[in-house]
Amino acid sequence: MQRVAPEPQDFDRVLSSMCTEPHPAAREAAVRFLATNPGDPGTYQEIAALEERAVEGLGDIAGLSEPEGYVASGGTEANIQAVRAARNLARDAGGVPTKTDAPTVVAPESVHFSFQKAADVLDVELRTVPVDDDYRADLGAVEAAVDDDTVLVVGVAGTTEYGRVDPIPELAAIAHDHGALLHVDAAWGGFCLPFTDHAWNFAHAAVDTMTIDPHKMGQAVVPAGGLLARDRSTLDALAVDTPYLESTSQATLTGTRSGAGVASAAAALDELWPDGYREQFETSMADAEWLADALEDRGFDVVDPELPLVAARLPDDLFSNLRDAGWRVSRTASGELRVVCMPHVTRETLQAFVADVDALRA
Amino acid sequence: MQRVAPEPQDFDRVLSSMCTEPHPAAREAAVRFLATNPGDPGTYQEIAALEERAVEGLGDIAGLSEPEGYVASGGTEANIQAVRAARNLARDAGGVPTKTDAPTVVAPESVHFSFQKAADVLDVELRTVPVDDDYRADLGAVEAAVDDDTVLVVGVAGTTEYGRVDPIPELAAIAHDHGALLHVDAAWGGFCLPFTDHAWNFAHAAVDTMTIDPHKMGQAVVPAGGLLARDRSTLDALAVDTPYLESTSQATLTGTRSGAGVASAAAALDELWPDGYREQFETSMADAEWLADALEDRGFDVVDPELPLVAARLPDDLFSNLRDAGWRVSRTASGELRVVCMPHVTRETLQAFVADVDALRA
Repeated sequence: MQRVAPEPQDFDRVLSSMCTEPHPAAREAAVRFLATNPGDPGTYQEIAALEERAVEGLGDIAGLSEPEGYVASGGTEANIQAVRAARNLARDAGGVPTKTDAPTVVAPESVHFSFQKAADVLDVELRTVPVDDDYRADLGAVEAAVDDDTVLVVGVAGTTEYGRVDPIPELAAIAHDHGALLHVDAAWGGFCLPFTDHAWNFAHAAVDTMTIDPHKMGQAVVPAGGLLARDRSTLDALAVDTPYLESTSQATLTGTRSGAGVASAAAALDELWPDGYREQFETSMADAEWLADALEDRGFDVVDPELPLVAARLPDDLFSNLRDAGWRVSRTASGELRVVCMPHVTRETLQAFVADVDALRA
Repeated sequence: MQRVAPEPQDFDRVLSSMCTEPHPAAREAAVRFLATNPGDPGTYQEIAALEERAVEGLGDIAGLSEPEGYVASGGTEANIQAVRAARNLARDAGGVPTKTDAPTVVAPESVHFSFQKAADVLDVELRTVPVDDDYRADLGAVEAAVDDDTVLVVGVAGTTEYGRVDPIPELAAIAHDHGALLHVDAAWGGFCLPFTDHAWNFAHAAVDTMTIDPHKMGQAVVPAGGLLARDRSTLDALAVDTPYLESTSQATLTGTRSGAGVASAAAALDELWPDGYREQFETSMADAEWLADALEDRGFDVVDPELPLVAARLPDDLFSNLRDAGWRVSRTASGELRVVCMPHVTRETLQAFVADVDALRA
């Protein structure tokens, strides 16, 4: 094989990603801890201490003063683990045999595809229900889908396609009325929502578990997802014994884990919470509104941004032309262009993008 | 929160880890790709190309000229995915209903605890069977445990506790006689075994899937595990749709993934396969034999090393004294000291360790 001599990632025209150029402090911390494994805390004690700090920081953001949880490989792992914990707790409680035999998860159809993955992996049924006219979970539809087999209800706080926030307190009430847990997927939205009026976190509602990812709007390096739980028992439901390690059990889905991700999450939280994240949110939100206005002015149908994410219906040939011009853009399931205003997406980038929209229209 | 200003990991006295100080070329590649996501290959095309090179390199080592697979977060993910693929393929084949209702995995009791995790996550039964007097899978016991419900038989090529290699060709024959697949866990051993006479890989036996981790003896940074499969259908059995990404399906367990791990795996393989890995194996093996002899000379019971891993029975108080002196050491389930001769463990380190054994004996 030949030597690897590639160029580093160029984010100039990346409008489709929910990851971003990490903050310099996060990058520096990642480089220092590249060779550590928080999955073996007995051997790698420094990184284990940093993970505790990162989880505390995530708890501050999510309204939980004594958070349980860990820095996961990403939102997919955190979502899978939330489903797994709910399934295992229902099984171990044993009170309702049907929950053991046919556990189901109820979620709006706007839920991330990682819940499809979780359903396959964990052998549970994912029951998705329609959203309302503004792309939020329809409470009547959720209520109708929940039954005695339901172990978990999922609400999304910042959907992947439209950046919408489901009615979390109401979803929690429905879940708990039926003996199920309530999980909030704030993987992307969690670092924006503290600066809005939404009721989305552990302090606002009877939330049991949450996904909140430092490596998205939190500006940490990949891989740094976050799983938070209100109760220790949730983590205990995930633990397996670890015979040859100096620690005695492990609640994570993966075994060896990235110290770089953990250290960078701790560093980013130290550096940016709350003022840096507030400033970034305000900048990104203003940029998203600017882009939405610019596309609307040009006659395209635009979904009004609630968080820094713009969806707009562009003709297929224009979408193709933009891709050919080097723009990394993606589409919603129903075909709209989707632009995620991450920290690396500046106003200048969006101005260049809109100029190309003008130049490349048929 | 205060600023993060920790010292980087010091590997000087770490004898317990299966991770190591990465090769400089691997570290450099990781730093360059810290901000990429191979889980979104449409957006991050450069890292997707590097992943193909890494998988090809792993195939070269494992005797597979057209390998299917990917760079996983680690051995745990790769092992979970191998079990998941076997379970899903049996379910989708549908020919043997019992395999769907009560899928079981048969493995020697020397198997890594990630298979316990896989059993819990995937809701399959893990049936572990005794090993022989030399810590290898007992073929009679495996044969007796396999039945119509068995979807997978696991063999270990380099066990976590004693570095032993199970009789892979014979295990493959037993598995296939019962319509099950054969998985080889070479997470740690895979980068040593090419330089031995063992029959362990896809060219030696009818192996279906394998775990082989660049971030262990491969000297890549964490997280870089490896999952290999002989057939494309194995990966297809893991795929879920990805509505908003530019790619259309995803076979990995995690979603967003570490470009650093992928790039460093490709770089390490470029740099070290085969001569660098051979040299490292020979050095590590000579060091392991030196340590085994030194401990045996001092009257301790030593398990003769077959790969660069030494297990020896030390008195409890000596073990505690060594830990108090700053040595990071761990024990097997039956209590032996376990020293993994990773690349960062030099002869000088082992000499210092043995000097402390002498000094700290009661």
